Amino acid sequence: MRTLVVGLLTPLFAVALLVMALQVKAQDVSQNEGKVRAVSNPTYGFVVHGGAGTIERGQMSSEMEEAYRSKLDEALMAGYRILEKGGSSLDAVEAAIRILEDSPLFNAGKGAVFTNTGTNELDASIMDGKTLKAGAVGGLKHIKNPISLARLVMEKSPHVMMVGEGAEAFAKQQGVELVPQEYFHTERRRKDLQRIRAAEKEPRKSSGLTAPGTDRPVLREEMFGTVGAVALDRAGNLAAGTSTGGMTNKRFGRVGDSPIIGAGTYAHNSTCAVSATGDGEYFIRAAAAHDIHALIEYKGMSLKDAASAVIEKIGRLGGKGGVIAIDKNGQVAMPFNSSGMYRGYVGADGKAVIQIYKD
Amino acid sequence: MRTLVVGLLTPLFAVALLVMALQVKAQDVSQNEGKVRAVSNPTYGFVVHGGAGTIERGQMSSEMEEAYRSKLDEALMAGYRILEKGGSSLDAVEAAIRILEDSPLFNAGKGAVFTNTGTNELDASIMDGKTLKAGAVGGLKHIKNPISLARLVMEKSPHVMMVGEGAEAFAKQQGVELVPQEYFHTERRRKDLQRIRAAEKEPRKSSGLTAPGTDRPVLREEMFGTVGAVALDRAGNLAAGTSTGGMTNKRFGRVGDSPIIGAGTYAHNSTCAVSATGDGEYFIRAAAAHDIHALIEYKGMSLKDAASAVIEKIGRLGGKGGVIAIDKNGQVAMPFNSSGMYRGYVGADGKAVIQIYKD
Repeated sequence: MRTLVVGLLTPLFAVALLVMALQVKAQDVSQNEGKVRAVSNPTYGFVVHGGAGTIERGQMSSEMEEAYRSKLDEALMAGYRILEKGGSSLDAVEAAIRILEDSPLFNAGKGAVFTNTGTNELDASIMDGKTLKAGAVGGLKHIKNPISLARLVMEKSPHVMMVGEGAEAFAKQQGVELVPQEYFHTERRRKDLQRIRAAEKEPRKSSGLTAPGTDRPVLREEMFGTVGAVALDRAGNLAAGTSTGGMTNKRFGRVGDSPIIGAGTYAHNSTCAVSATGDGEYFIRAAAAHDIHALIEYKGMSLKDAASAVIEKIGRLGGKGGVIAIDKNGQVAMPFNSSGMYRGYVGADGKAVIQIYKD
Repeated sequence: MRTLVVGLLTPLFAVALLVMALQVKAQDVSQNEGKVRAVSNPTYGFVVHGGAGTIERGQMSSEMEEAYRSKLDEALMAGYRILEKGGSSLDAVEAAIRILEDSPLFNAGKGAVFTNTGTNELDASIMDGKTLKAGAVGGLKHIKNPISLARLVMEKSPHVMMVGEGAEAFAKQQGVELVPQEYFHTERRRKDLQRIRAAEKEPRKSSGLTAPGTDRPVLREEMFGTVGAVALDRAGNLAAGTSTGGMTNKRFGRVGDSPIIGAGTYAHNSTCAVSATGDGEYFIRAAAAHDIHALIEYKGMSLKDAASAVIEKIGRLGGKGGVIAIDKNGQVAMPFNSSGMYRGYVGADGKAVIQIYKD
C-alpha cells in the first residue's frame, strides 16, 4: 500500500513543482510589464464588431458593403498592430473603438442614432482583465469618443460608472474634447428616425418586427448598433470594450447593455474578454458577458461552447444579437443568432478576416 | 458484474423517477400560479437588509439602535406575511423595501443622502427569478418609492433600465406619485454632507478612511447606505430588490451597484435571489450578485459557500460590504466583511431575527 501511495505521489509532486514554477513566471511578467517590453507569451489576438442585426445579403449595395468591410479592417488592424508591437490590450481596444466611433457607418460616436426627442445620447464601457478595473459612461451628449471617457473613469476616478451631465463635468475636468450635438447629426440617422416614427404610425407598412415585449414596430437593423473590441496582449492581459449610440427613437432615458459591466462588457485574465451587441435588455437579464466568464471558470467549458451557450440562452429568452470573445489562449468566438453581425479577427497567419453575414 | 450493475441501477432509477415526478409537480405550480392559490411548497422565506458599513457596538445610542431594529422588523414581517398568505415574492420584496424607503433611518427613499451639489438622487432595481425579467432606475430626483418605479419599468415597459429625467417622464406616464426634492431633505443627511465636506478639507481630522482608490477621506458609515430584500414564495419563485440614495457627496453622476442587474441585484429560480450593499464599484467589477448564482449553478456550491466566496473576492479586490441571499430551498446567507450590516430574516419557527453587528 505504501508503495502505491508513494508511486502516486511522486508524479503529483513533480506536477505541483511545475505549476509553482509556471506561476512564479507569470507573476514576474505581470509585475514587470510596466517597465519592460520583453514578451514571454507569443500568443495575442484581436477581434472587433460593428453590431449585429438583420443584415441580409443583397439588401446592401456593394459600395456600402465595401465601406463597412474597409472600416472594420482599418479598426481591426490598428488594434492588432498595437498588440504586435507589445502594446497593451487596453490600448488596442480603445484605439480600434475610437476608429469605429469616428466613422458615420456605425451606431457609436459620430454615427450615433437619434433618440425620440431628436438628441444623440451615447454609452460605452471598458474593462481590464488583469485588475478587474472597469469604466462605464451613459447618456453622453457632447463626448466625441465615449470609449476614451470610459477609460478615464476607470483610470482617473474611484468610480466605475458615471452618467449624463455629471459624466460630462468629469470629462471637462479631465480635459476631454467636448463637441456640440450637431457633430452627431448625420442625414442617414435622421432618416432612420423618420422611418421608424412613420412605421410606428403605420404598423402594417413596417417591417413587421416589434420591440422586445411590445407591439411597437421597429426596423430591426436599426436597433442593434454597437461597436466593440476584445484583445489578448503578449503579456497575457485581456481587455474588452463596447460603445453605442443606443436605440433609434429611444425614450425615457433607456440604458442598454453596452455600459453595463457584466452584461455588454466583461474581461477577466483567468478566462476571457467579451463584448456584446444586440437586444440590450436580454443581455442585461442574462448578465451575458459575465456568464461566459463563469461558464469557463466554474464549468470548464471552452470559449466557443460558453459563448454559444449564452447566445442560445438569449435566444430562448426571446432576444437577438451576438458577442465577440477571446480567451486567455487566444481562441476566438463570434456567435450570433441574428442574420448578420459586422465582425473581424486576425487569423493565425496574421491576415484580417472580415465577415458580415451568417455564412 | 451484471448483478452489481443492476443492483446499482435500481435505486438510481427510483431516484430518477422521483426527480421527474417532482419536476412535473413544480411545472404545474408554475403554470397555474396566476389562477390558483393552492400551494404545494411549504418552504418560503424572507430576508431584508438596511445597509452594511462601519457600525460599531457602543457608537449608537440605545434609542437609535431600537429604532433601526423596530423598522427592520416592520419591513421584514410585512414581506413575510405576504408570503405566508401565498403572495408572490415580488410583492413581498416591493412591500418591504417601500417601508424602508419611507423611513428616514435608511439611505433610500426619504432618508437618501445628499450629493455634492445638494440634491438627492435615487437608484433601485428589482428582478423576478421566474421570468428573469428585471427593472432598474437611476438618478431619480422626484420619485418617492424608486423600487416601485423599477417594478413598473420591468412590468410596463420593454426596457430594463431607465435613468434621470427620462425615467421620471415614464413615471408620470404611469401615474406615479412625484414628490418635490424637499421631501428628501432631512437634517441628519444634511449634517452628514457638511461633516464629509469638512473632513475633505481637513483630512487629519477625518475618520482616516478614504474613498476606494483615492486619498479622498470619507466617513465610511455614510458610504454604504442601501436597503434590500430577497424572497422565496410558496410557488417556488425567487425575487430580489435593492434601493439606495447613493453615496453622500457623490459627484459626476456616479452610479453604484444598486441599479445594476447582476451586480447589486439578481434572482434566478434555478438557484437564488441576492441583494448587495457596500462599495458599489467593487460589486460591479465582480458582478457580485450574478456570480453567486453562477457558483451555485455551475459549480454546485451551497448558497452559504457561494455568498461567502463572493464577499471574500470583494475583500481581496479591496472592497467592503455584504449581501443577503436566499436559495430555492429557503436557505439563507448574509455574509459581510464590514463591521456591521443591518439585517433580518425569519427563522424556521416563524420568528423574526434582527441583527446589526458582526457577533
